[in-house]
Amino acid sequence: MIVQDIQKIRMEAPLIHNITNYVVMNVTANALLAIGASPVMAHAVEEVEEMVELAKALVLNIGTPSIKWVDSMLKAGHVANHRGIPIVLDPVGSGATRFRTESAMLLLRNTPPAIIRGNASEIRSLVLTEQCTKGVDSIHRPEETLESAQFLSRNYRCVVSISGATDLIVENDSIIRIRNGHPMMGRITGMGCIATALTGAFAAVNPSYFQAAANAMALIGIAGEMAAERSTGPASFQISFMDALYNIQESDIESRLKMEIG
Amino acid sequence: MIVQDIQKIRMEAPLIHNITNYVVMNVTANALLAIGASPVMAHAVEEVEEMVELAKALVLNIGTPSIKWVDSMLKAGHVANHRGIPIVLDPVGSGATRFRTESAMLLLRNTPPAIIRGNASEIRSLVLTEQCTKGVDSIHRPEETLESAQFLSRNYRCVVSISGATDLIVENDSIIRIRNGHPMMGRITGMGCIATALTGAFAAVNPSYFQAAANAMALIGIAGEMAAERSTGPASFQISFMDALYNIQESDIESRLKMEIG
Amino acid sequence: MIVQDIQKIRMEAPLIHNITNYVVMNVTANALLAIGASPVMAHAVEEVEEMVELAKALVLNIGTPSIKWVDSMLKAGHVANHRGIPIVLDPVGSGATRFRTESAMLLLRNTPPAIIRGNASEIRSLVLTEQCTKGVDSIHRPEETLESAQFLSRNYRCVVSISGATDLIVENDSIIRIRNGHPMMGRITGMGCIATALTGAFAAVNPSYFQAAANAMALIGIAGEMAAERSTGPASFQISFMDALYNIQESDIESRLKMEIG
Repeated sequence: MIVQDIQKIRMEAPLIHNITNYVVMNVTANALLAIGASPVMAHAVEEVEEMVELAKALVLNIGTPSIKWVDSMLKAGHVANHRGIPIVLDPVGSGATRFRTESAMLLLRNTPPAIIRGNASEIRSLVLTEQCTKGVDSIHRPEETLESAQFLSRNYRCVVSISGATDLIVENDSIIRIRNGHPMMGRITGMGCIATALTGAFAAVNPSYFQAAANAMALIGIAGEMAAERSTGPASFQISFMDALYNIQESDIESRLKMEIG
Repeated sequence: MIVQDIQKIRMEAPLIHNITNYVVMNVTANALLAIGASPVMAHAVEEVEEMVELAKALVLNIGTPSIKWVDSMLKAGHVANHRGIPIVLDPVGSGATRFRTESAMLLLRNTPPAIIRGNASEIRSLVLTEQCTKGVDSIHRPEETLESAQFLSRNYRCVVSISGATDLIVENDSIIRIRNGHPMMGRITGMGCIATALTGAFAAVNPSYFQAAANAMALIGIAGEMAAERSTGPASFQISFMDALYNIQESDIESRLKMEIG
Repeated sequence: MIVQDIQKIRMEAPLIHNITNYVVMNVTANALLAIGASPVMAHAVEEVEEMVELAKALVLNIGTPSIKWVDSMLKAGHVANHRGIPIVLDPVGSGATRFRTESAMLLLRNTPPAIIRGNASEIRSLVLTEQCTKGVDSIHRPEETLESAQFLSRNYRCVVSISGATDLIVENDSIIRIRNGHPMMGRITGMGCIATALTGAFAAVNPSYFQAAANAMALIGIAGEMAAERSTGPASFQISFMDALYNIQESDIESRLKMEIG
């Protein structure tokens, strides 16, 4: 299925509208281009509604939030919801400051996402009131966040995708675990945001958002493993990772995939 | 002539003031540094007029536009026009939303550019009222945009530079076609914006903006060809492309240049 | 000492809160991750005070300044000062426009930094009233800025770190000179901003800010030398530089360090 999704992305080049953070705009755009999608970044309140009309998925990422940008996200999100295209929400750093947690909750409640994608601490912060992240890095593991994810999935009728050593994809009582990936992925900025953007591309071509979320995480984990074999540090890792996204073959996926459904 | 321009850029290191989009700020600054120019990014309404006083060219790029940034572009543009330094305008995504088209037209009318540089869909959108881009990617070819380019050139007394498989540089009835380049250039973000920034550097040292625009596109196309021979995917392509900009020799240009005048 | 600092950074992964410019957010975050620190970028006035409560150092960089961002820097700076964590101030482009010089002075006076880190022209602009930079590039050498640095150090009770062919670290009458580095470092954007961010990481683990500032500059110079040996142009240099930050060993430092105290 991963391969079919990738082929569809390459053939259809779905437009993915990103309202995302300053740190990762360049790398997420490049990751989307590498797998064959067509990224657009647009945040002005004057144009987001019109831009999202052209898109096949909307990615909302609060990595460097401000009130104005959250307003634009809400506006774009309403149109996405109305058009029935999937929203992927990345609550970057939620739990680190009240403003981030509240921004994430505001988006979650007012522009229901198809998929919430974050690290364990961020996902927990949407359910529990503890302050539970260190900046934008997680201090929890996905497994200890399973209940929070199930709660979110049921209450907001969405898929929850948690990245970690083992990724966890949750929809109601269904769980997919993905054991692909490499520790170097935590040593470059934006890997989580890339995961979110690519999840948007998969959700644009696969009507099962549960499958789409899992396929995106599997692809990223496998590309990470391939990159680690060809690099000498985090920067060359990132280059190899992006090239792997572009070059990945069915055989790479078949030989490496560690996905458990159940 | 390309070589003379490059030597001048390397010797004079002209300051190029960029008011550009968040996605490409880093890569366009690096591209300018790679060919020997001196980039500065500054957008605050409080300082753009003073900054542009120091510059040899002004690059205006609406890739992630907002009202405030367009205001700053207008302010900087007035000073650039008054000082007689060239403005290069990149109407990124014009045609995709009314806000982008109107921002592009506002800049075109109020701060006359020396060179408009964009893809075919963007250039058409400045003349025709059709909605005619898909996000920031072109859905037209340069050749079918020739009449629009000629109309723009005559009405706004500027050069029009359209990127595509064959680049088209237009000034009144004169046309230059450049058949250099590589498809991989469309698989990384910011290649068009790099073209615009480097066009600014060439216009800073070559008083014929028609020649400057053509030379910039030829350099980029040739560097793209050289990079494609040394890379294994879009990310390593981008690295090789930047290194090629830095290393390019007269012999590379002589042996590869496919420029047609007439 | 450099090695001890690096080991501490790798072990403790101190959170470094950056309010910095759009051009370098990605590369400075990656440089911090490469040496083992944990970067966070947050600029909204609604969250900076809370975010800096979690941090071990605050980096303020006015590379693409606006009134709103400077306001947030002041707010974050007050909390950092109150908590006693070090502020590293990078007055990027100070001297190029009144707005930059005034923003730098405002931060210098109202949120006293532990370390000011800039190029020679920027440092001079904080003392002398001449207009003395070309955009964001220096037109002076560190040595001719020694008096200005000493004046700043005494008046603002801080360390002053000036990058150049020979870096100069100044605290009152003490001076450290570092002769590591490579000319290619001036051919990629953000190298100065990376120096500032890493200075923040060293200041987070070394209570002698004088030593911390010197150690950061030495590390960067040495990584630059190592990268130059493995690269073919500025872009591959940047990749190798980042990998070197990640891989650097005690033996690399011992065999290359050119630090003079006195």
